[in-house]
Amino acid sequence: MPLDELSIIDRYFRPLAGEGAFALTDDAARLDVPREADLVVTTDMVAENVHFLAADPPDAIARKALRVNLSDLAAKGAAPLAYVISIGISASTDGAWLAAFAQGLKEDQQRFGIGLLGGDTIFVDEALVVSITAFGTAPKGRMVHRSGGCPGDVLFVSGEIGAGAAGLALLKREQGEWDSLPQERKDALTRRYRVPEPRTALAPALAACASAAMDISDGLVGDCDKLTTASGCSAVIDAERVPLPEGIAGEDAALLARLLTSGDDYEILAAVPPGRAARFMEEARWAGVTVTEIGRLTEGATPPQVLFRGKVLALKSRAWVHGQGERS
Amino acid sequence: MPLDELSIIDRYFRPLAGEGAFALTDDAARLDVPREADLVVTTDMVAENVHFLAADPPDAIARKALRVNLSDLAAKGAAPLAYVISIGISASTDGAWLAAFAQGLKEDQQRFGIGLLGGDTIFVDEALVVSITAFGTAPKGRMVHRSGGCPGDVLFVSGEIGAGAAGLALLKREQGEWDSLPQERKDALTRRYRVPEPRTALAPALAACASAAMDISDGLVGDCDKLTTASGCSAVIDAERVPLPEGIAGEDAALLARLLTSGDDYEILAAVPPGRAARFMEEARWAGVTVTEIGRLTEGATPPQVLFRGKVLALKSRAWVHGQGERS
Repeated sequence: MPLDELSIIDRYFRPLAGEGAFALTDDAARLDVPREADLVVTTDMVAENVHFLAADPPDAIARKALRVNLSDLAAKGAAPLAYVISIGISASTDGAWLAAFAQGLKEDQQRFGIGLLGGDTIFVDEALVVSITAFGTAPKGRMVHRSGGCPGDVLFVSGEIGAGAAGLALLKREQGEWDSLPQERKDALTRRYRVPEPRTALAPALAACASAAMDISDGLVGDCDKLTTASGCSAVIDAERVPLPEGIAGEDAALLARLLTSGDDYEILAAVPPGRAARFMEEARWAGVTVTEIGRLTEGATPPQVLFRGKVLALKSRAWVHGQGERS
Repeated sequence: MPLDELSIIDRYFRPLAGEGAFALTDDAARLDVPREADLVVTTDMVAENVHFLAADPPDAIARKALRVNLSDLAAKGAAPLAYVISIGISASTDGAWLAAFAQGLKEDQQRFGIGLLGGDTIFVDEALVVSITAFGTAPKGRMVHRSGGCPGDVLFVSGEIGAGAAGLALLKREQGEWDSLPQERKDALTRRYRVPEPRTALAPALAACASAAMDISDGLVGDCDKLTTASGCSAVIDAERVPLPEGIAGEDAALLARLLTSGDDYEILAAVPPGRAARFMEEARWAGVTVTEIGRLTEGATPPQVLFRGKVLALKSRAWVHGQGERS
């Protein structure tokens, strides 16, 4: 028997309801915001064949949909608080799929200390679509924007750049340097594409030290361009300092250019005034998040310059832009 | 030339950005909630062929997506504050369509006094999908729930019941009593199906007087069942008192049963303690919203009983349930 909307909510989503959600039995929820905090709101929609693959495990789809939002919150210096979710599924979606999807949400709720506030379930004819709006709290007046960077600020990235792109290439069976990696490294890369790692632990360090930050979802260089444009400056990135996934050497300029301009990193790009750089690194270390200095903000209004072995690295594009069919 | 995500935001959505949205140039927004208010959050997803028809005007699609959320807020006694929107559109969607869609949002933002906080635009292969999360403020501790009703409370509905169902039937060319209406009445009914009328003006009266309330989106009788279930009681509805659209007589029991169990009303069902009923009617009158007494909450745990000419009205179903294929 096909599942209806009410049974789906009852069985799979009600157990996820957090404080203020009224057990998902009301038209709306109440979100209590601590007085000493600013409420930060972000929303992202993900769809089959665009942001994930149809064959991806349902719990991974759920986690990715949630985590791309948590990544935005982290970049703003905000701790996650709660979220609402709307899903458009096929009427033939079975209970096992929904149970696994809900389990992915449940585990991530526990891991990130958040509750489900509400949602909507609709039935669509075609590809699965998931829309999440997530809420976080930043220390009052300390939300980190893209626009606060100044020439001279040190550019940091969290984690490593290119793991999502390499993971997607492996899933699509595209040839590349990753082919020669041991299977466990390959698995780690595809896992990373499917389930990003939001840098929630880094949020306090960003709120305390960063002049500007954003999450890298559409490629390091293009997203850096957005940050410098918002901040009214330019940047120099030292490609040799950009941390790449273990086992990928980055000796090849074309491969390096690809990894620096591909999406799905969900790492943090942060600009930190030189006087606060040491403190930022120290706080990141305590938070257990690796951060690496990769360049500087500079005067000017040109796109970021990427240097590799003393020369400007040739880039076919700076970022993935949805809907263009190819890169700009 | 096809439009990319960044051009779409630039041209069509940036002009809609409200306070705290940072001109849609950041990863997230800041939502400032007045100290004396509770923040109420609701989310709804609408899709082509489910909640609207492919041929519907784009500004009507935008308004419906927004207004179904504002209707939820109104039912909770909350004044609208802001919203975020995610849309999944075809890559071939043209500028004229997007301009009309954004214009619908703009006019409703002005009408309801709200701003756009943020959003996401993605490209999907198939049917259009729109997901909105809306924020409202209720007087502290006065958010109206479904669960607060008590036996003896007076049941009121706003506006009229069945206009959305009649409008949809006209659009689908289904035969019925509406066929004999003058063209301008038919047009009013189809307009009403396409663009619901959230009862935002009634929110203060609900916050002040109602023990329980909800918006009627899946049919009066079924939604009343949800309210009585949440409130731990039952109800009697006097079908002859239910206000129907002008020109539809409701003499025919089968037609009446249909109108009382069809979706797309977006009116408010409210339970009001008898001692506050006069004040509620007075406040509704000042707000310019017609409210009609249609029954009472009663002791018991059975579904609401609908009386017509002294007998129980036979209902094939109580409500539209998405995904069942037929009514329950």
